[in-house]
Amino acid sequence: MPLVRSWLESANHPECPFPLNNLPYGVFSVAGDAPRCGAAIGDRIVDLADAEARGLLDAGGTFAQPQLNGFMALGRAKWAEIRARLTRLLAEGATDDLTLVPMSEARLHLPIRVTEYTDFYASRNHAFNMGVLFRGPENALPPQWTHMPIGYNGRASSVVVSGTPIRRPMGQIRGENGPEWAPCRRLDLELELGAIVGADSVMGQRVSVEQAEDMIFGYVLLNDWSARDVQAWEYQPLGPFQSKALGTTIGPWIVTQAALEPFRSAGADRVNPLLPYLAEQRPGLYDLEIGWSMNGQVMARTNYNVMYYSSAQQLAHHTSSGCPMRVGDLLGSGTISGPSPDQSGALLEMTEGGRKPVMVNGESRTFIQDGDEIALFATARGDGYRIGFGPCTGTILPARP
Amino acid sequence: MPLVRSWLESANHPECPFPLNNLPYGVFSVAGDAPRCGAAIGDRIVDLADAEARGLLDAGGTFAQPQLNGFMALGRAKWAEIRARLTRLLAEGATDDLTLVPMSEARLHLPIRVTEYTDFYASRNHAFNMGVLFRGPENALPPQWTHMPIGYNGRASSVVVSGTPIRRPMGQIRGENGPEWAPCRRLDLELELGAIVGADSVMGQRVSVEQAEDMIFGYVLLNDWSARDVQAWEYQPLGPFQSKALGTTIGPWIVTQAALEPFRSAGADRVNPLLPYLAEQRPGLYDLEIGWSMNGQVMARTNYNVMYYSSAQQLAHHTSSGCPMRVGDLLGSGTISGPSPDQSGALLEMTEGGRKPVMVNGESRTFIQDGDEIALFATARGDGYRIGFGPCTGTILPARP
Repeated sequence: MPLVRSWLESANHPECPFPLNNLPYGVFSVAGDAPRCGAAIGDRIVDLADAEARGLLDAGGTFAQPQLNGFMALGRAKWAEIRARLTRLLAEGATDDLTLVPMSEARLHLPIRVTEYTDFYASRNHAFNMGVLFRGPENALPPQWTHMPIGYNGRASSVVVSGTPIRRPMGQIRGENGPEWAPCRRLDLELELGAIVGADSVMGQRVSVEQAEDMIFGYVLLNDWSARDVQAWEYQPLGPFQSKALGTTIGPWIVTQAALEPFRSAGADRVNPLLPYLAEQRPGLYDLEIGWSMNGQVMARTNYNVMYYSSAQQLAHHTSSGCPMRVGDLLGSGTISGPSPDQSGALLEMTEGGRKPVMVNGESRTFIQDGDEIALFATARGDGYRIGFGPCTGTILPARP
Repeated sequence: MPLVRSWLESANHPECPFPLNNLPYGVFSVAGDAPRCGAAIGDRIVDLADAEARGLLDAGGTFAQPQLNGFMALGRAKWAEIRARLTRLLAEGATDDLTLVPMSEARLHLPIRVTEYTDFYASRNHAFNMGVLFRGPENALPPQWTHMPIGYNGRASSVVVSGTPIRRPMGQIRGENGPEWAPCRRLDLELELGAIVGADSVMGQRVSVEQAEDMIFGYVLLNDWSARDVQAWEYQPLGPFQSKALGTTIGPWIVTQAALEPFRSAGADRVNPLLPYLAEQRPGLYDLEIGWSMNGQVMARTNYNVMYYSSAQQLAHHTSSGCPMRVGDLLGSGTISGPSPDQSGALLEMTEGGRKPVMVNGESRTFIQDGDEIALFATARGDGYRIGFGPCTGTILPARP
């Protein structure tokens, strides 16, 4: 698919993350006014609340709300209608009727009220590497891993938007004479994509992979900050808890499933057939370069299509017990890692458990130090354009003892 | 503390679960009208929305809402004010000004909008017995168990009120030639008390055990339905997921911390000192008989004070990473089990993993069959009165293949 040209010149540059093909949704405010919904185009934000107030589109008043949950709840047909309408209004030749706010003047907010947050574990490289570090090579990949998307419920209340500082946590850490209460010494990131659920499902009723795909509104960058020393001491048998509750950063822009459609891609080869409830009719991943940097230096690049399970498969599995899903649920893909260290989505993996430091701007690092900034990035490359996700950054503040 | 007598005679009977000493909060409707907040007294419900509309008390209009979250958010001083006011209005000798609805005519709803749900693992008997069954006697009690309240994030969307039928889930279950997709064959209950968080905390700031206690609004009965065969296959390394997402039943009445105050009790003896952030200044458990029945036959009775960690300790630990808590968060105590089989809060434990069937009304059971009804109960006995929690029941529907 080629670039769809806009009358806004900044949207037509081949390196612009927000061409008309993208049109991601977010929530913004300017100079302290009320947060409302917007769409990114070029170096501007379309004020969707204003557009609706002026009768240019109809989203039932939901764009005036400070999160996108209300709009998402209107359903898939409305998502398509508004996308088509915005595309017409912004296309080359259209009359300029919309209020566009310079992105440089806007503050970006958490785009959704996160209803519940679930994190998965779907990169085989990552699962194997982490398994070796936590449990040794014999038990590295759990036996069910190639049969189901393993996931755990995370904490929604600590999901924050890009740019929010993250406090290094205190925690219980294994010591020589029992546990110590200490600042985390092995603070890590996890490079993920977050799928945003835009429709409810009914308790007691399962959702197929095809139905699940129709429930996904879009995707954000997601960094699941992790306290590895807290994790190692706490996580058996009930899984990670406080080690993952210190904060989860998501990007401010939700890239819609519609924008990613041209980049559909198969994932990793299957080791064994899946049970029918997880079978996909068509490729469910995307050809999407994704990576992260520390203090401005790119540390790793890989591709989302290394994953073994798609978000639709994860969502279908999530309902396998009859568990109801709700608008605003956030599903972390799991850490995205390719096979080599410069494709690692976490420092624990990249440094082999802290044994092989890496250099960052001439300084040695095993884990994240106070003041370090981690930034995620992702790009899908089309014909003469690219789809970007905007920033997903966080800087670490010192622990409060 | 003796019985506080009411002008409503049914509240003064020594076996009535809802004397004036109790005054639990819930949400009710009558003949399909709008759900609103109420308080149980004797065989009646005080219509709190009506009481507020008539100027008898002031809760900022929150009692007209269909859940107690708004009232809880008003804070601890308001909780005390309203309890004192209701106690005066209902005391022997007071003028009858309140609208009382017969409990037999009311439908009871989920009393809160569950923000997030966390389940703990705080009975040493239960943790040891389950550990033997899942991992063998050598690794039964995890090494951190006596140092921290182990918990995991559960699924809030599948929390339902007493009386809601529960569908037997389908799931992936370990088979001889890889996993099978089958109806759960080892469906179980978990006997728990749920603590309801009535105040927010701030991200990045920890809460002490004393502060945590002040944040707890009250307690409900809680049955964390569990698919043991699904759990055994899925739960390593990230913890239980779909095995616990089929449904969690809570009672309709929130018994306040104030009503339980006379029953404070120390818990199980400590094996080792706790780290200072978990130390309690005063006993944090309650002398509360708790048990469950199947199809009307009492199967087990134990006491909440067998637990090793209080809800306040669990809540303090929950914030140890800086994780923010919110009004409406629900914390499951963990399965409450005494040392003997007739004190077991789960069938897996009682039947030693399904090897020793139990008799229920002349029929043999290892796990729950379709049509079985499980009911939880709890009672704190005072001087001439008792504090009850109302029903917490669920009946199992057949799986949908």
